[in-house]
Amino acid sequence: MTTETHTRAAPYVHGYSDAEAQRLGDQADTLAELLHAGTAYPAGSRVLEAGCGVGAQTVHLLAGSPGVLLTATDLSAESLDQARARVAAQAPAARVSWHHGDLHRLPFPDGAFDHVFLCFVLEHLPDPAAGLAALRRVLRPGGTITVIEGDHGSAFFHPESAAARRTVDHLVRLQAAAGGDALIGRRLYPLLTAAGFAEVAVRPRTVYADGGRPALVEGFTLRTFVAMVEAVRAEVLAAGLATAEAFDRGIAELRRAAEPGGTFHYTFFKAVAVKP
Amino acid sequence: MTTETHTRAAPYVHGYSDAEAQRLGDQADTLAELLHAGTAYPAGSRVLEAGCGVGAQTVHLLAGSPGVLLTATDLSAESLDQARARVAAQAPAARVSWHHGDLHRLPFPDGAFDHVFLCFVLEHLPDPAAGLAALRRVLRPGGTITVIEGDHGSAFFHPESAAARRTVDHLVRLQAAAGGDALIGRRLYPLLTAAGFAEVAVRPRTVYADGGRPALVEGFTLRTFVAMVEAVRAEVLAAGLATAEAFDRGIAELRRAAEPGGTFHYTFFKAVAVKP
Repeated sequence: MTTETHTRAAPYVHGYSDAEAQRLGDQADTLAELLHAGTAYPAGSRVLEAGCGVGAQTVHLLAGSPGVLLTATDLSAESLDQARARVAAQAPAARVSWHHGDLHRLPFPDGAFDHVFLCFVLEHLPDPAAGLAALRRVLRPGGTITVIEGDHGSAFFHPESAAARRTVDHLVRLQAAAGGDALIGRRLYPLLTAAGFAEVAVRPRTVYADGGRPALVEGFTLRTFVAMVEAVRAEVLAAGLATAEAFDRGIAELRRAAEPGGTFHYTFFKAVAVKP
Repeated sequence: MTTETHTRAAPYVHGYSDAEAQRLGDQADTLAELLHAGTAYPAGSRVLEAGCGVGAQTVHLLAGSPGVLLTATDLSAESLDQARARVAAQAPAARVSWHHGDLHRLPFPDGAFDHVFLCFVLEHLPDPAAGLAALRRVLRPGGTITVIEGDHGSAFFHPESAAARRTVDHLVRLQAAAGGDALIGRRLYPLLTAAGFAEVAVRPRTVYADGGRPALVEGFTLRTFVAMVEAVRAEVLAAGLATAEAFDRGIAELRRAAEPGGTFHYTFFKAVAVKP
């Protein structure tokens, strides 16, 4: 997930630690092909990435569209610094303007961009419709918006485990308490339609990991999904959602999906729509 | 789902009514491309379809592999008659041998087939590993087995609804009580691996329906999934799993996924493996 917070939002549910920045990088690298396939903007296009966070997706966006004029924004100055460093290291030739600010109040004129891209951002907004409306303003008529989100309700695994399921549900509840929605993937179509976008096309992008795909088991099941759930342990305990014992049992049972004979399934949603 | 029952199984959970045969046809036609893509056997191959039921998948199998020598088996003579009629109408040139019997005790010699295909069958077997072992016997070394199954735990929808979710869970429980497993999709990899198959490759095949895909909303959300859940109403009430009022409220809320602004997600799993 990227780091997008603003005046109406509680703090970013996943935190800003080094471990989290590492997790975001692992996640983005493992999923780059799955999430970014099909996104290639023509050279010279003015592209806005809203909520770029630590730049985990930015480098993949630039790899797929090397000639664009990218503007990347985030509300966290610290995340933006990390994004700048990451892009300097991995895409030194890219032309990127960095903007520190709130995506709801961007200082760009109407229609300033040909394309808008955002990944794991809407899930953190208390009012994603307002965010989409603000982004629509800076998009030119005929320009596209691309939105990628997960949906934790899509997570299921073998062996089935009620304890593991409850532990995942704690993260969903925590994110809701912070004003977000970890189940937002399924809502992209109605959100974009209601925001006045046209030609809304939403496609599921499914991750499925079993013993025949050891790199995905390691990179996604363990280092992306389980790591994400595990990272909110302190907040779950502080919120009184679970005892330490129950939380840890849930994590241990979730990890069985990464053992021989285990399987894990998760669906991301990628939406592309046009500003009429 | 196809109609496969045997001495150790309770009656087929979906029943044998005309409405059910119609539903199976609707389901198969809507999903033909999604489920059958990638399955094309060379002309002259000896192919076994185990548990062909009313032939809903058989006609699509034959469309993708028109020159095969197909043997189709089912435990229900009545279903087999319907399958024969369906194939005669839709694939009159196909060469099909019909066999009435139990897939666990097929009267064919070891290695009699080049390929085995089964769709929505394992979910109804009390011991799917035993079923796979029996099918492995009649497959020649180097031959492939293709298994397609759903997983009701993959169903999620917008608007979210606890009542709708409970109603889906009743079907899962009913199928478990009948000796089956409506969550079997996620188990295909470990089941095939444990049964001694090699090169086991499982791929998710995801159905996602929103307002931009009205044919899928009608053909899948309503006429396949909701119809399937609705069809077990009498059994759910007889088993005391829900009151009529609660069941009907769940169905009504599930139907909202097919209304404007609603979305629906379901994942099938398709596995291909080789007999060493």
